Amino acid sequence: MTNSPLEPAPSAEPPQPDPNAQPAEPAPDSAPVIGVDVGGTLIKAAVVYADGQVGARVEEPTPPARDADTVLSAVVSVVAGLLERTRNEEPRGDVAALGVAVPGIIDEQRGVAVVAANLGWRDTPVRTLLSEATGLPVALGHDVRSACVAEWRLGAARESDDALLVTLGTGIGAGVVSDGRLLVGGGYAGQLGHVVVDPGGTQCTCGQYGCLATLASATAVVRRYAERASQTAGDPGSAANGSAELTARDVARLARTGDPAAAAVWDDAVTALADALATAVTVFGSELVVLGGGLALAGDQLVDPVRDRLLARLTFQRHPRVVRAAMGAESGVLGAALLGRAALLDAVPGETAR
Amino acid sequence: MTNSPLEPAPSAEPPQPDPNAQPAEPAPDSAPVIGVDVGGTLIKAAVVYADGQVGARVEEPTPPARDADTVLSAVVSVVAGLLERTRNEEPRGDVAALGVAVPGIIDEQRGVAVVAANLGWRDTPVRTLLSEATGLPVALGHDVRSACVAEWRLGAARESDDALLVTLGTGIGAGVVSDGRLLVGGGYAGQLGHVVVDPGGTQCTCGQYGCLATLASATAVVRRYAERASQTAGDPGSAANGSAELTARDVARLARTGDPAAAAVWDDAVTALADALATAVTVFGSELVVLGGGLALAGDQLVDPVRDRLLARLTFQRHPRVVRAAMGAESGVLGAALLGRAALLDAVPGETAR
Repeated sequence: MTNSPLEPAPSAEPPQPDPNAQPAEPAPDSAPVIGVDVGGTLIKAAVVYADGQVGARVEEPTPPARDADTVLSAVVSVVAGLLERTRNEEPRGDVAALGVAVPGIIDEQRGVAVVAANLGWRDTPVRTLLSEATGLPVALGHDVRSACVAEWRLGAARESDDALLVTLGTGIGAGVVSDGRLLVGGGYAGQLGHVVVDPGGTQCTCGQYGCLATLASATAVVRRYAERASQTAGDPGSAANGSAELTARDVARLARTGDPAAAAVWDDAVTALADALATAVTVFGSELVVLGGGLALAGDQLVDPVRDRLLARLTFQRHPRVVRAAMGAESGVLGAALLGRAALLDAVPGETAR
Repeated sequence: MTNSPLEPAPSAEPPQPDPNAQPAEPAPDSAPVIGVDVGGTLIKAAVVYADGQVGARVEEPTPPARDADTVLSAVVSVVAGLLERTRNEEPRGDVAALGVAVPGIIDEQRGVAVVAANLGWRDTPVRTLLSEATGLPVALGHDVRSACVAEWRLGAARESDDALLVTLGTGIGAGVVSDGRLLVGGGYAGQLGHVVVDPGGTQCTCGQYGCLATLASATAVVRRYAERASQTAGDPGSAANGSAELTARDVARLARTGDPAAAAVWDDAVTALADALATAVTVFGSELVVLGGGLALAGDQLVDPVRDRLLARLTFQRHPRVVRAAMGAESGVLGAALLGRAALLDAVPGETAR
């Protein structure tokens, strides 16, 4: 239990070597594990070693039929491929566990995808299904919280017991570390993207109006810029042409070079984010805010004004540091692997992991 | 450690009786403890037995000179009085520990009042000072979180691992139970009263504008009603006369009987509270909201419309139950006593408690 990434890092001595251990069977904590990040678009997976090194990896499209049977079969097939490659190419022991990260309302403790919004799953017992199909101990994680586990264990929040790890991508999610623990809340914790910052504003995919995600997700920034730019499309200097292929980073670049539509959209995103972060810091008492995901690729152009506006809003509250995420697009896979390693350490051999 | 009220309730067997125990020295967990709730107006204290029964109790005004020396001396004197009464009147063993609850930014883990706003203390090592003065193991707690510990352990949140316990009094504070733990956040967690729900609204004592506390604290409801009623003071039917002595419960009663100023103020409070709770539930994933404090004395007149408006705002989020607190004004003292008992169980005899 002590080494679960959802728990504080162990402070005591490392585990004692077992004098009766068979050299042919590596101790569980040195065995490789597989991390899988199941997204709405891609399934990414990799073999991860105990020292954090990444071995064989694979990335393939999520099956268009997104029902749980089809997608989990694809995951099993990806895992089988990695197991085969590891056996043939890697001399560092057999893969001993599997960690799988899925978007939605994910109850890590029960191993159940309560709702996987982009995939259409409901109350899917992912841990049991994958454990039966692969014969491995399995941990199920939430995609954003898994990425946060990697950022917390290996990245920008390594030293913190009270951190808010925000991913600004297609949507906005947060992993909340409080008193040295990652909050789960039955799978519902950390939905920062659905904090209402603009009451009566644009309707969100969740049904509410004016959610943070309608202003500050990478998707929202691109959409809002395209809308504004198309209104000035008669202007030959407009950058609206080709906006369908724009990324949030492009909008940031346009804002920097003086495009007024881009500057306004970027400013709205920064303000909305500072508002939502002020609320989050007020209720969590976070000492550190880490910004990641597509929008954070803009670097200081996002982090600096968000920090300035956040600190300007706060009075008696804790004044957090605001930094950019250190881990890249691989954090989901790495976090899933960390969860898998924890499942392995918890597992009684021959039993399914908790 | 296992019996700390900040930690999940122990699920294993009860502690085994020690065959070597001296009958003359009661086991620590059966000894009485003293709980003290230090407020801006009153110091309340009581002896609390292991079975939860309350023995001798005392209530006296907080010294007008609110510096830490003066107030802590008053606490020591209150404790000495209770110790004396217990020795003379109670046959159930010596008081073995002290729990003290204080308002402000309180770091329970270090035993330090980082900022005690109403008292003007800063970085005051309350635990050490009181432990040295009384010779007892001491636990320091935050006033709202201590009341929440009582509500969580003994009251309306007994069954819940993910609850939001809100006190609506002079100010608004919340105790947040998440994954079976009470969040501390370095003392900064749970400042729900300072979530901004009305940007650009009335300035709050904290310096921000439009905090929840400016609309929905018991103080704000009375103040806003008095302001509105005074504007219509020419109206002979107005209830503005005597409003200086009104309580929030009176405003609720006036709203119920059709006073338009009272109805408008009550409606604003309910809406603001539903807005802030929607945000809190979105980020914490709470399954239960418990409303306590002066405003909650209005009972269903508060709880029912807050529940309706909160649930109407939520979409994919967890839909929490909303109930009234079960514990009364004594919850601060009881919670402090629970913290004191925990300090006792953690303490090594002869050492100051952690």
